[in-house]
Amino acid sequence: MMMREQAEALDRADPLAAFRQEFSLPDGVIYLNGNSLGPLPARAAARVAEAVAREWGEGLIRSWNSAGWYMAPRRLGDNLAGLLGAEPGEMLVTDATGLNLFKAVAAALDLRPDRKVIVMEGSNFPTNNYIVQGLVRFLDRGHEIRFVEKAGILDAIGPDVAVVALTHAHYKTAHLLDMKGITAAAHAAGALTVWDLCHSAGAVPVDLNKAGADFAIGCTYKYLNGGPGSPAFIFAARRHHAAMRQPLSGWWSHTAPFAFDRDFQPADGIARMLTGTQPILSLAGAEAGIDLACRADAAQTRTKSSALGDLFIQLLESRVTGHGFKLESPRLAVERGGHVALTHPKGYPIMKALIEAGVIGDFRAPDTLRFGFSPLYLRYTDVWDAVTLLAEIMETGRWQDARFQQVEAVT
Amino acid sequence: MMMREQAEALDRADPLAAFRQEFSLPDGVIYLNGNSLGPLPARAAARVAEAVAREWGEGLIRSWNSAGWYMAPRRLGDNLAGLLGAEPGEMLVTDATGLNLFKAVAAALDLRPDRKVIVMEGSNFPTNNYIVQGLVRFLDRGHEIRFVEKAGILDAIGPDVAVVALTHAHYKTAHLLDMKGITAAAHAAGALTVWDLCHSAGAVPVDLNKAGADFAIGCTYKYLNGGPGSPAFIFAARRHHAAMRQPLSGWWSHTAPFAFDRDFQPADGIARMLTGTQPILSLAGAEAGIDLACRADAAQTRTKSSALGDLFIQLLESRVTGHGFKLESPRLAVERGGHVALTHPKGYPIMKALIEAGVIGDFRAPDTLRFGFSPLYLRYTDVWDAVTLLAEIMETGRWQDARFQQVEAVT
Repeated sequence: MMMREQAEALDRADPLAAFRQEFSLPDGVIYLNGNSLGPLPARAAARVAEAVAREWGEGLIRSWNSAGWYMAPRRLGDNLAGLLGAEPGEMLVTDATGLNLFKAVAAALDLRPDRKVIVMEGSNFPTNNYIVQGLVRFLDRGHEIRFVEKAGILDAIGPDVAVVALTHAHYKTAHLLDMKGITAAAHAAGALTVWDLCHSAGAVPVDLNKAGADFAIGCTYKYLNGGPGSPAFIFAARRHHAAMRQPLSGWWSHTAPFAFDRDFQPADGIARMLTGTQPILSLAGAEAGIDLACRADAAQTRTKSSALGDLFIQLLESRVTGHGFKLESPRLAVERGGHVALTHPKGYPIMKALIEAGVIGDFRAPDTLRFGFSPLYLRYTDVWDAVTLLAEIMETGRWQDARFQQVEAVT
Repeated sequence: MMMREQAEALDRADPLAAFRQEFSLPDGVIYLNGNSLGPLPARAAARVAEAVAREWGEGLIRSWNSAGWYMAPRRLGDNLAGLLGAEPGEMLVTDATGLNLFKAVAAALDLRPDRKVIVMEGSNFPTNNYIVQGLVRFLDRGHEIRFVEKAGILDAIGPDVAVVALTHAHYKTAHLLDMKGITAAAHAAGALTVWDLCHSAGAVPVDLNKAGADFAIGCTYKYLNGGPGSPAFIFAARRHHAAMRQPLSGWWSHTAPFAFDRDFQPADGIARMLTGTQPILSLAGAEAGIDLACRADAAQTRTKSSALGDLFIQLLESRVTGHGFKLESPRLAVERGGHVALTHPKGYPIMKALIEAGVIGDFRAPDTLRFGFSPLYLRYTDVWDAVTLLAEIMETGRWQDARFQQVEAVT
């Protein structure tokens, strides 16, 4: 069995170790929930304070130009593009994830007007389903969502399919889909793809153009550490720019927004996917996290995230035996995103006890415990210590205390 | 002719004078652009710093509950409701203005499925037109925008009209529409109303329920001083809550967002107008400004804003004569919102020269200069001094300098 000293040795050899000091992490916390909300990059606090005091307070309205507010979605998008295999001019950081999904799926449907089927994974994070259901309801011309699970995706892609809208790394199990293979199958059937990278960006290597992806979206507040509800990203392959249209066509997506023309004329390029005025303080908060993710070596990021997850599984199976945990995620790191999911019938109180003990993961109904292995600030010893605390909670039965049983609104 | 001493006397008698110290205003600036981006409330800087360091940095994921992030759109909406004549539970602060317009017009059209006409003011701030044009294009079932101007609105409302979507205070001229009369005419014709309050909220008394309004939207970064691109508000009269549906139906608008059901079921009440995860730092930035606007007496706010605008017009006509300015706004304050618009064929370089002199207003193509009279931080002497500087710029011809002629992207 592995000893803590071995985890310490792995930390000493970690080529990403220096990134940890870029984050403001609270004392006494092992943060295994960066797959939900990443922690605060130290520079983000300074950047937001500057946006408030100097740009808003001193610069006032002039900062739309002088502080680069107006161009921020494009500037951050160009920065992020490199990490995800997109070119500059193919990506924006703007709006919320669900809204970007709405725009991307609507644009894709608009490019395939004679097809009515959208293929989605039924077990996907539900907001994706809800957003597309809302779109279909309002379009009201016979579109159908064909819900399938992972094993049935390829079979579901036929000549009636307009769009294949899938999440690369599953929000619950973390299983990875074959972006390149599925995209090729979609294209062979005449369909377009919309990839949700919420649980991939910053954790798993992604090469959108190499995979042939048509559209992609994702959030910046998980492995990109952009802050609570920070604006999301949207990608559209350059070959679609001239023909694509999206319904949320506010003034920032106009070809001449400051001409104040009465009628809409779409901008050229990715600006067509903009809507309107953006939440600047939240965009400022996202800059530092995106910068850090782009500075890290993507292969090292993936290697460490996989190793942390593997270590967690290995320690769990050797040190927390006989307590009824089941591995919900793929055992092989190559099939997994950045987190590891377990199931346990008492998952909710166990997670609450663990959080009280300083190990923050999360719970997803009905019985999933998720542990995120974000590689820029976690140490191998954190994984060791987290499993030690989990073992203690199970062995002492502390999770059975009454204070852990009460369900809160948001977990 | 009035003397500066008289303006000083008005400042001494101003019942709202104490609010000025709540704002962080830069030295050497007379800020007449609060109709575009309000200045920084001092408490906003502290509130954002707390949201970053304590809530994000220390609280991490737990802050969705413990810091009230998840309920923030409802909490801020309930706070703002009182100012605008809505009840608690009828308003949210969420998403961007254009997106809220999209949701409101889509919901209204959905409630009037057999009607195809949307009445809008063609000269309105163009993003409103663009958003509704985008909606109409994607619905693709024969909806038509009937563009009219102020004088033609009532005649345009017939039995074919589904929605009347108008802006209460015009972004350029500041002319006010008769919200109550137009709403009554719309209802008499069987239509619904969507009121845009971007240039009203915080400047002009609004009583949505007394006016019988169906839906309303507006931004929080103008007279509500919520910060650059701060989330907007949306109102839906309670009588519509049970039947209304909107297309951007993300997980926050689900009846049980944490049950992770596959299929969408709308929440009860105004939560149905939510979409998904919100930009928390920008929401935190908006709290202080909304609080200030709600604390001020609405009648005093209106009285002072009107008096500042009247004073500006009066001083302009007595002290800046013969230079070709024309008043574009209504002369009577009762017909005007919170700003005053002038036209001048050389408006662009004149405004740039004025900004260099420390008087910040803005320019809207092709020839409009706008001056906002936000009552919580402006003094009567500010108006006096601004006109003095404008007079000097015109008399010396300084606006003709080459450095004022170059057009920037955003103004």
